[in-house]
Amino acid sequence: MKRITIKELFAEPERYADQTITVAGWCRAIRASNTFGFIDLNDGSTLPCLQVVFEADRLDNYKEIARQNVGAAFAAEGVLVLTPEAKQPFELKATSVTVEGTSTPDYPLQKKRHSDEFLRTIAHLRPRTNKYEAVFRVRSTAAYAIHKFFQERNFVYVHTPIITGSDCEGAGEMFRVTTIDPDDPPRTEDGKVDDSKYFFGKATNRTVAGQLNVETYAMLTVSGQLNVETYAMAFAKVYTFGPTFRAEKSNTPRHAAEFWMMEPEIAFADLNDDMELIEAMLKYVVAYVMKECPRELELFNRFIDPELLTRLRNIVESEFVRVSYTEAVRLVKESGLKFEYPLEWGMDLQTEHERFLTEQVFGKPVFVTDWPRDIKAFYMRVNDDGKTVAAVDLLVPGVGELVGGSQREERIDVLNESIRKFGLREEDYGWYTDLRRYGGTKHAGFGLGFERLIMYMTGISNIRDVEAFPRVTGSADF
Amino acid sequence: MKRITIKELFAEPERYADQTITVAGWCRAIRASNTFGFIDLNDGSTLPCLQVVFEADRLDNYKEIARQNVGAAFAAEGVLVLTPEAKQPFELKATSVTVEGTSTPDYPLQKKRHSDEFLRTIAHLRPRTNKYEAVFRVRSTAAYAIHKFFQERNFVYVHTPIITGSDCEGAGEMFRVTTIDPDDPPRTEDGKVDDSKYFFGKATNRTVAGQLNVETYAMLTVSGQLNVETYAMAFAKVYTFGPTFRAEKSNTPRHAAEFWMMEPEIAFADLNDDMELIEAMLKYVVAYVMKECPRELELFNRFIDPELLTRLRNIVESEFVRVSYTEAVRLVKESGLKFEYPLEWGMDLQTEHERFLTEQVFGKPVFVTDWPRDIKAFYMRVNDDGKTVAAVDLLVPGVGELVGGSQREERIDVLNESIRKFGLREEDYGWYTDLRRYGGTKHAGFGLGFERLIMYMTGISNIRDVEAFPRVTGSADF
Repeated sequence: MKRITIKELFAEPERYADQTITVAGWCRAIRASNTFGFIDLNDGSTLPCLQVVFEADRLDNYKEIARQNVGAAFAAEGVLVLTPEAKQPFELKATSVTVEGTSTPDYPLQKKRHSDEFLRTIAHLRPRTNKYEAVFRVRSTAAYAIHKFFQERNFVYVHTPIITGSDCEGAGEMFRVTTIDPDDPPRTEDGKVDDSKYFFGKATNRTVAGQLNVETYAMLTVSGQLNVETYAMAFAKVYTFGPTFRAEKSNTPRHAAEFWMMEPEIAFADLNDDMELIEAMLKYVVAYVMKECPRELELFNRFIDPELLTRLRNIVESEFVRVSYTEAVRLVKESGLKFEYPLEWGMDLQTEHERFLTEQVFGKPVFVTDWPRDIKAFYMRVNDDGKTVAAVDLLVPGVGELVGGSQREERIDVLNESIRKFGLREEDYGWYTDLRRYGGTKHAGFGLGFERLIMYMTGISNIRDVEAFPRVTGSADF
Repeated sequence: MKRITIKELFAEPERYADQTITVAGWCRAIRASNTFGFIDLNDGSTLPCLQVVFEADRLDNYKEIARQNVGAAFAAEGVLVLTPEAKQPFELKATSVTVEGTSTPDYPLQKKRHSDEFLRTIAHLRPRTNKYEAVFRVRSTAAYAIHKFFQERNFVYVHTPIITGSDCEGAGEMFRVTTIDPDDPPRTEDGKVDDSKYFFGKATNRTVAGQLNVETYAMLTVSGQLNVETYAMAFAKVYTFGPTFRAEKSNTPRHAAEFWMMEPEIAFADLNDDMELIEAMLKYVVAYVMKECPRELELFNRFIDPELLTRLRNIVESEFVRVSYTEAVRLVKESGLKFEYPLEWGMDLQTEHERFLTEQVFGKPVFVTDWPRDIKAFYMRVNDDGKTVAAVDLLVPGVGELVGGSQREERIDVLNESIRKFGLREEDYGWYTDLRRYGGTKHAGFGLGFERLIMYMTGISNIRDVEAFPRVTGSADF
C-alpha cells in the first residue's frame, strides 16, 4: 500500500494540501452522526492523530465505518484540507475509507487514563497509547544515536557473546543456560547427573591454555567488557551494545533480569580520555533525541516530570565537573547535612550523597574519580597510591549514577595480584591476561545501562515501563 | 592521547604530508639494523600498515625499540613523508617512539599463514590478523547499515525479549534459562523439585488472559517475530536486531547455538510489499559495505572467493526475479538434470535446487513465493487455494536461501485453525491472537540471519569465523 505517514503530513502540510492521499492507521476515537463522522487516526509515525472526516453522502459503506470500535484499523483515501482556524492544523476529507481490521467494544484501551500497572498486563497493546508510543520511539531513537555516534567516530561494533563461561565481575548472580531438565536430568549408571549430556560441556577444572574454564554450566552474560577488551586490542576503538542479565531476586522499580548495555572500550587511552568520551557521547545522544523526538519529550515534560527538559538541556549545555572520590567524601562530610547513611572514606556513595553532589554542590553532571580499590572491580587500574583505582562514576542531577567506567589494569603483575586479591583464580583469566602479555597498552572503557538512560530521558521511574516485555522475578510473560 | 588514525592518513595523505603527527598501534613486523629500523604499524582503523622509520641517531631508546617483538604496542611521533616511488605511499620518520606494551618472542601471530582452526583457539587474538580484522569491520559496518536503512525510513527498533516462554515456531530446540542447579535442585518435603524456586515461576497450565503459558521454564528465544508483531500493530514499521538461539546439536559449518537475527515487520502490507522491502534493504546494505569497506572486500575477493565482488555487484544491480514455488518445482523437474534429492510438489527445496534456480535458470537473486502450507509456519497467511501460504524465500547465487519471510495470517479464525492444525494450543497464543481481535490488519515481515549475510558478503564459509566468540555444541570458551 502506498501510504503517506502522518509524520510526513505534519512535517510538510503545505506540500500535501489539497492533494489526494492515502493514509492508514488505528482508530483512537470515533464519533458519528447520521450524516458525518470523525476518526482520530494514529499510524505510529508520530504522536498526533490525523482527523479523518467521513460523510454519509460520499461513502457507500458509511454505516459500516460509523459502527467501528476504538482500536480498529482503517485505510483512508481523501483530500488533505488545511484548517488554520481549528484545533488541528489539517484534516482528511475522505473519499473512501476501508476497514482493514475490526475491533471490539471491550477493546482494553478506551480513551481514558489507565494505570501503568494495568498496562503492564497488556504489554502487547500498550505501545498503542501516547505515553508508550513516546517511550518506545525515544528508545529506538536513542539506540540509533548510540550507533551513529560510535560509527561516525570509526568505532567497531562487536557482538560479544550472550552465553558465556565468564563471570565478568565475579558477582555470581547469573542465569544458567542448559538443555537439561532439572526435574529429570539424564543420569549415568551410578545415578549421577550425566555431565556428557551438557550442550556446551561441563568441564570442571578444564584449563585449556588461553581459555576460560566452563566450570559448571554455560551462563547468561552480565557484561561484554572482558570480551570486548580483546577487540579493543585489535581495533583500538570498539563498543558492544546488547542484552545482559542479572539473576538477582530484587523486586524493585530499577532492576530487571534482562536489560541492554552499551560498553565502549578505547586503547591508547587513560581515564581522562574515558571521561571525554562519556561526556561527548551523552551530549550527542541527548541532543539527537531532543532534535528527533521533540513531541515525545514535550509529552513527558508535561505529564511525567516538569523538570525533564531543563535537565536534558543541562546535560547538553554544561561542562561536566570532575572531582575525586576523596574530595567528594570531604564535601559530603563537611556539608553539615544529615544523611540516612553517614559516609566515611572507603564506603560506596549512596544515592542521597550522589544527588547532593550533583544537584546541590555543582548543579550539573559530575565525574567522581579515583575510588577505593576495595569497593571496585578487579580489572581497574591501581593508582600510584596503591589504595585507589582509576575508576569513574558519572553522577547526573535527578538520578545519581548514570555511567560507570575505568581505566583497565594493563600491567600483568598488578592485574594478577588483583585477581588473587579478589578471590578469583589466575588460570580462569588466561585469555584476559594474554592481552597484557602481547602488546597490552593503556586502555579504558565504560558501561551505560541503556534502560537507565531511557528512564533518565523520559522521566519514567519504573524499568518495567521502558522495556517492551520486561523480565523480572516471577514473570517472563509474552 | 591525541592520535591520528592510519585510516585518516590513507584518506588524505596530502593533508598530513610534512606535518608532525602522533600515531599508535600494534607492530605487525619489525626489522632493524644497528643504525635504523622499520615497524609495520597497524592501528585497527584500516587494513594497511603505516611504515614507521626509526633511527639510532635520533632516538635515545633506539635499542629498546629495536629489540621489541611482533605484537608490541607503540606510540610514535614524527613527520609524515610522502614516498611516491616506494611500495607504500608514505612513511613516518619518527622523532620519538614509545613502547606502550611489550610482546613476547612466542607471540602466536607471527607473520605467516595460520589455519582457521588454529585461529579459533585464539579467538581473543585473531582480530589482529588482516583476515579477521576485515571480517569484523565488515560485520560492524553491515550492522550499522541495517540500522541506518530502517531508521532513515522511520522504522522503530524494538528490543524483543531474549528470555521467553514463547516457542515461536513450535520447533522445540530451545535452551532453558534457570537459576536451578540440575545436579542439586531444591526439593519439597516429598522429594519433588520445588517449583516455587524457579526464578520466572514454573506455571504449568497457567492461562492468564492474553498471556502465554510459562509451561516449564524460561527459555532463550529462537525469534523475536511474534513479539515484534505486537509493535508493528502500534508503529506500523518496526524491526528487531538481536541475538537468537538454537539448541540443535548439529556440528556443521553453518550452525551456531547463538547468532544475530534481524526481523522487520510492516503493517498495511502484503507479500509484495515484503519483497520490495527485502530487495531494497539488501541492496542498501551491500552497497553501503562496498562503499565503506572496499579494501576489506578486495582482500576477500583475492584470498577467499574470486567471485565475491561480481556476486555483490549482481545483488546491487539486478532486479530480483519473482517466481512461485509451484513454478520453481516445475523448472527443477523439467530441467532434465539429476539432483541428489528428486523434488516433488510439497517438498522443501534443497540447496542444490535453490542454486540451480538462482545460478543457472535466472543468474540473479530469485524470490520464490507461495509455498505449501504444510512445510511452513503456522502464522503464515493461507492463500485462497487453501493449500499454499503467502511465504517467500530469497535465493541468491553462490549460497541459496538468504532471507525468509511471509505475510502473516490476520484472520483470527484461520489463524486459530492453523494453530490447532500445527499441534499447538490456542490458549498459549492468546496475546498473539489478540492482535487480530483489535485492529488486526494485513502485515508482513521477514527474518535475515545476520551471520549468513556476513558469510555471503565475505565468502567465509564457516559461521565460527564470522562470530567474535562462537558458541557451538561443546564450546562456550572465552
